[in-house]
Amino acid sequence: MISLLLNSNMSGSNYSELVKTFEQYLAENTFSGQPENLYNPMNYMMGLGGKRVRPVLTLLGCEIFGGSVDKALPSALCVEIFHNFSLVHDDIMDKAPLRRGQQTVHQKWNEAAAILSGDLMLVKAYEALLKSEMSLWPRLLETFNNTAIEVCQGQQWDMDFESMEYIVMSDYIEMIGLKTAALLGASLSMGAICGGATDDEAYKIRRFGELTGLSFQIMDDYLDAFGSSFEIGKQQGGDILANKKTFLLIKALEVGDERSKKELIDLHVDSQMDPKYKVEAVISIFTELEIPAMALEQAAKYNDLAMKEIMGLGLEDKQLAPLVGFMNFLKGRNH
Amino acid sequence: MISLLLNSNMSGSNYSELVKTFEQYLAENTFSGQPENLYNPMNYMMGLGGKRVRPVLTLLGCEIFGGSVDKALPSALCVEIFHNFSLVHDDIMDKAPLRRGQQTVHQKWNEAAAILSGDLMLVKAYEALLKSEMSLWPRLLETFNNTAIEVCQGQQWDMDFESMEYIVMSDYIEMIGLKTAALLGASLSMGAICGGATDDEAYKIRRFGELTGLSFQIMDDYLDAFGSSFEIGKQQGGDILANKKTFLLIKALEVGDERSKKELIDLHVDSQMDPKYKVEAVISIFTELEIPAMALEQAAKYNDLAMKEIMGLGLEDKQLAPLVGFMNFLKGRNH
Repeated sequence: MISLLLNSNMSGSNYSELVKTFEQYLAENTFSGQPENLYNPMNYMMGLGGKRVRPVLTLLGCEIFGGSVDKALPSALCVEIFHNFSLVHDDIMDKAPLRRGQQTVHQKWNEAAAILSGDLMLVKAYEALLKSEMSLWPRLLETFNNTAIEVCQGQQWDMDFESMEYIVMSDYIEMIGLKTAALLGASLSMGAICGGATDDEAYKIRRFGELTGLSFQIMDDYLDAFGSSFEIGKQQGGDILANKKTFLLIKALEVGDERSKKELIDLHVDSQMDPKYKVEAVISIFTELEIPAMALEQAAKYNDLAMKEIMGLGLEDKQLAPLVGFMNFLKGRNH
Repeated sequence: MISLLLNSNMSGSNYSELVKTFEQYLAENTFSGQPENLYNPMNYMMGLGGKRVRPVLTLLGCEIFGGSVDKALPSALCVEIFHNFSLVHDDIMDKAPLRRGQQTVHQKWNEAAAILSGDLMLVKAYEALLKSEMSLWPRLLETFNNTAIEVCQGQQWDMDFESMEYIVMSDYIEMIGLKTAALLGASLSMGAICGGATDDEAYKIRRFGELTGLSFQIMDDYLDAFGSSFEIGKQQGGDILANKKTFLLIKALEVGDERSKKELIDLHVDSQMDPKYKVEAVISIFTELEIPAMALEQAAKYNDLAMKEIMGLGLEDKQLAPLVGFMNFLKGRNH
């Protein structure tokens, strides 16, 4: 996603510079040690790339409050290692064969190596964080600990949801808040803390990140069904084929009449159906129920709430620009 | 193992008191949160009991250097949570159905819940540690991080060894040093740090713990084949039936002639054989090669080295007594 971000002509911080700064720090801090079956998976995973959204947010959060990005590099590395740890373990749980177009760790090595290299990445996330200035430790560690707890909770809720027939929308929002939005918020606020933000400022920018994260996840759900393959970088309807409980499905089951509900549930549990037909049939019901507009509206609502959070900070336009740019980028993916 | 310890009439600290103090702190710090499928496995695992060797060592380490045990309770909880985290994940990797006579977490819930509750326990180990006095954070966190890394390395070596035909003894010692001894050493030294030990004192007591841990693991290997079921609390020959590469097997392949090596390897790979016959046949070769005496000698050697480490500390007899008691307890299991 940040590839689009990199091309946007925003005022304020230069995203490609921040990515470059982070990548250089990452290269200076590759994992080294024995045995190879432990360390190779870790470096493989970190090397798969991804868009480095979280560490860039950390560096951005620091800059906004006037800090030199160097101060936030340990936190940036921490959140990126943590994110990759969670992906390694999630991929085991989801039995996913691919990640970023490459073999997942448990597929390329084995499940034991994936569990263990994930564990060590979690330890290494703490180790990275402890390279921060010691005076920042209490606030950074508290934020990071609480966020790590939330991400684990979110992932377990997500798994619990798999075996539940109906999910209430508020529960879904809480789940994505924990699983996805919490780390985006924490990435910003840890950077802000490094940059000299007060507790109140760090709280507000974290809320901005979380609310933007909610918007992002709903857009992600929307684009899976209604974006072009070009926009989403993967096959259209992947969530539908994986029978995932997305914003779209939950909303459709909430607002639909009995007939469309029954059709959706029948389609949802049918794993024998022709994939193309299944995706088309589900999308057609979503469209009929006007779910796409509701998703866009909900995403916009979270963006508005996010804006309100940072407007209260009294930042200058120059400081606000990169944050607003980030939000616009997220909004802009579907247009 | 500590049940014997509790009954020993040693001078110095009262082990049962320390266990009680720890259990009370543990009870005040049970995990609470949602979802249940995340938190119940964590409390289930901590509640399976075990002998609380590591947290007791932490409290002991603190007392030896004159600290009130209260100061070391966060560290004690940290090492016990960490130990249990490692057991939850190891049990998945080993596909173990039972732990302490009860169902393992992945068996009672499922593998995903076991991965995730283990992950959260690792986070909670850090959280527990951060309840220590802040002035102690740098030394405690450094010790704990390094130890967590070592334990992961040790577990991966152990798994790597499974698919290797020959293991060199020095590699085996390094593996058990990382997987088992490191945390025993760290438990003592983190307590010592809380009690006011200098870096040198904390280092020496950690080395004492590590060397005693090596001795302990070799005795564990020995007792599995040559202890009575009463002494070891489980079926005799369990390691032999699980085709584990123990000190005994590695030593036997090191010193045996071609005939006994071949016999051992044939027995080792045979999974169809009558269990009773297999255990007897392997034990008979071990005995013929005088492996039991070599194991006892090696264990005694590590105990002597452990004693040398703490003799250099200039502790009073009163302070030394509980440590020597601990060592004697470990030595004493086989007699």
